[in-house]
Amino acid sequence: MSAAPSVNTPSSSSFDLAGWSQRHLARVEHALSRWVGEGAPAGLGEAMRYAVLDGGKRLRPLLVLAAEEAVCSGAEVEASAHAVSDGAALRAACAVELIHAYSLVHDDMPCMDNDVLRRGKPTVHVQFGEAQALLAGDALQAFAFELLTPDDGSVPDGMQAMLCRLLARAAGSAGMAGGQAIDLASVGVALTEDQLRHMHRLKTGALLQGSVMMGVACGPASAQAHEALSDYGAVMGLAFQVVDDILDVIADSATLGKTAGKDAASDKPTYVSLLGLENAQAYARELQVQAHAALARSGLADTRALAALADMVVDRTH
Amino acid sequence: MSAAPSVNTPSSSSFDLAGWSQRHLARVEHALSRWVGEGAPAGLGEAMRYAVLDGGKRLRPLLVLAAEEAVCSGAEVEASAHAVSDGAALRAACAVELIHAYSLVHDDMPCMDNDVLRRGKPTVHVQFGEAQALLAGDALQAFAFELLTPDDGSVPDGMQAMLCRLLARAAGSAGMAGGQAIDLASVGVALTEDQLRHMHRLKTGALLQGSVMMGVACGPASAQAHEALSDYGAVMGLAFQVVDDILDVIADSATLGKTAGKDAASDKPTYVSLLGLENAQAYARELQVQAHAALARSGLADTRALAALADMVVDRTH
Repeated sequence: MSAAPSVNTPSSSSFDLAGWSQRHLARVEHALSRWVGEGAPAGLGEAMRYAVLDGGKRLRPLLVLAAEEAVCSGAEVEASAHAVSDGAALRAACAVELIHAYSLVHDDMPCMDNDVLRRGKPTVHVQFGEAQALLAGDALQAFAFELLTPDDGSVPDGMQAMLCRLLARAAGSAGMAGGQAIDLASVGVALTEDQLRHMHRLKTGALLQGSVMMGVACGPASAQAHEALSDYGAVMGLAFQVVDDILDVIADSATLGKTAGKDAASDKPTYVSLLGLENAQAYARELQVQAHAALARSGLADTRALAALADMVVDRTH
Repeated sequence: MSAAPSVNTPSSSSFDLAGWSQRHLARVEHALSRWVGEGAPAGLGEAMRYAVLDGGKRLRPLLVLAAEEAVCSGAEVEASAHAVSDGAALRAACAVELIHAYSLVHDDMPCMDNDVLRRGKPTVHVQFGEAQALLAGDALQAFAFELLTPDDGSVPDGMQAMLCRLLARAAGSAGMAGGQAIDLASVGVALTEDQLRHMHRLKTGALLQGSVMMGVACGPASAQAHEALSDYGAVMGLAFQVVDDILDVIADSATLGKTAGKDAASDKPTYVSLLGLENAQAYARELQVQAHAALARSGLADTRALAALADMVVDRTH
């Protein structure tokens, strides 16, 4: 069942998202498989690879790559510059996925959500033990920044610095980790819609928006495009969470690949518990429209991949 | 009781390490206090500050600052360039301390060393709960990279990229996290001296050497100085661990500010269990001599602070 029944979906039907995703995911999977855990000692590499490979929708990497393509689409970019922004975007795409993966490893641990199932597989701490899971998460975060700072001259210094800055802010106490702390403190607490939105803007939104802005940082972007894609990223962060909350209610564990109904069981505030299911679905549609509107004012020549990803986020079933 | 009875200590007695440290530590403490946890929500900031402030010898920050001073000591540096390297070194000094602090928070958790006492205070998870401790460690790591990438133009892009690169490598699976994984896998295992050295080169050595090299990266360094200080950093990493193992045997918990005798109790291999106490003490002295020799071949005008820190590491009582 789709998260939000289609009412008046903006059309991006001329774009082949499946083909586009498949092409780009092949690059991401190949790069992750080549880079993650390489040479890590004493089982650490295996735990890191288990946490990252063969799993997940890779939404964040796709946002990075789609944003980089969009900002390059209007500009006259020489072949050499294009190779640089492509290479940087691939590294950025992998780096955000490493941050996402580490957060899941730590989230699943007994002292947090105590989840035993993730993407249909035993969670990392179940498979490798808690200590190794803790270390694997820590090492994945460090490796994200290592990926962004190659010493082979392939990514200009300024771009490396900007990518590290965006990722650190998105992952840290003003972003993902901060959102998780609010989440932790709000179990059983009746949040207002503003408080719930603030929590998710940090917990999920910061890294999704950060993904978009890291893609933007890999290419040439006007101030107008920069601002519009920042808005797009913020809306996508919200939409993703609203749909996640909806799916937690309407989907089953087999479809989700993780334990469904966890939010209600743990008395966590959600958009569904706050707004009700129908209003939450309507809100998801509204955010989809806002995402398309932001792209329309970017002034960029080709934002079709970003538009299709917005549709996918709202229409997804898992 | 000092870790290694003095036999033939290289002299750095003309240098006032206490005064030098006091001056530089004041800058580090002030900066950490201003920066760490600022604006972090839902108790996360308190846990981060508790983990970092008012504690520790700050050896790593001092190594960063001493190395930066050393590489600047020979060069003709304009006042403006000097302000840049000073500011960058202060950020680097704080960043390595954040990585060190996060590693202690995670190390102390029940699934790792399960320690309840650190620097004479309850450990972070005892004080704030396991979930918050996990998040605080994660947020501290992210914040280290945020500190290295200011967007105010105070640190050049190339320096930001280099500092992030050095820190990520030192903290990750080829450094600290990798060493911890080896440590985890070697409880109750009879390691050879080479294996023990490899473990510590990663677990403790990488971040100590990384501290020195981050200081070097903040100033102008010849290839000769770069290589010599890299050697100095590697030797310091080893010396620190050898002395740590000695102190775990000869000091008591009150002096150490943490639980003494943990290594023997947990059947972890140490330099003392491998070499015996007297040989371990002789090895510490030998490393001290090697550290001084590395400084002597650096070609730098003033390496007195680095020399005094080497003496302090070997002569320390806690």
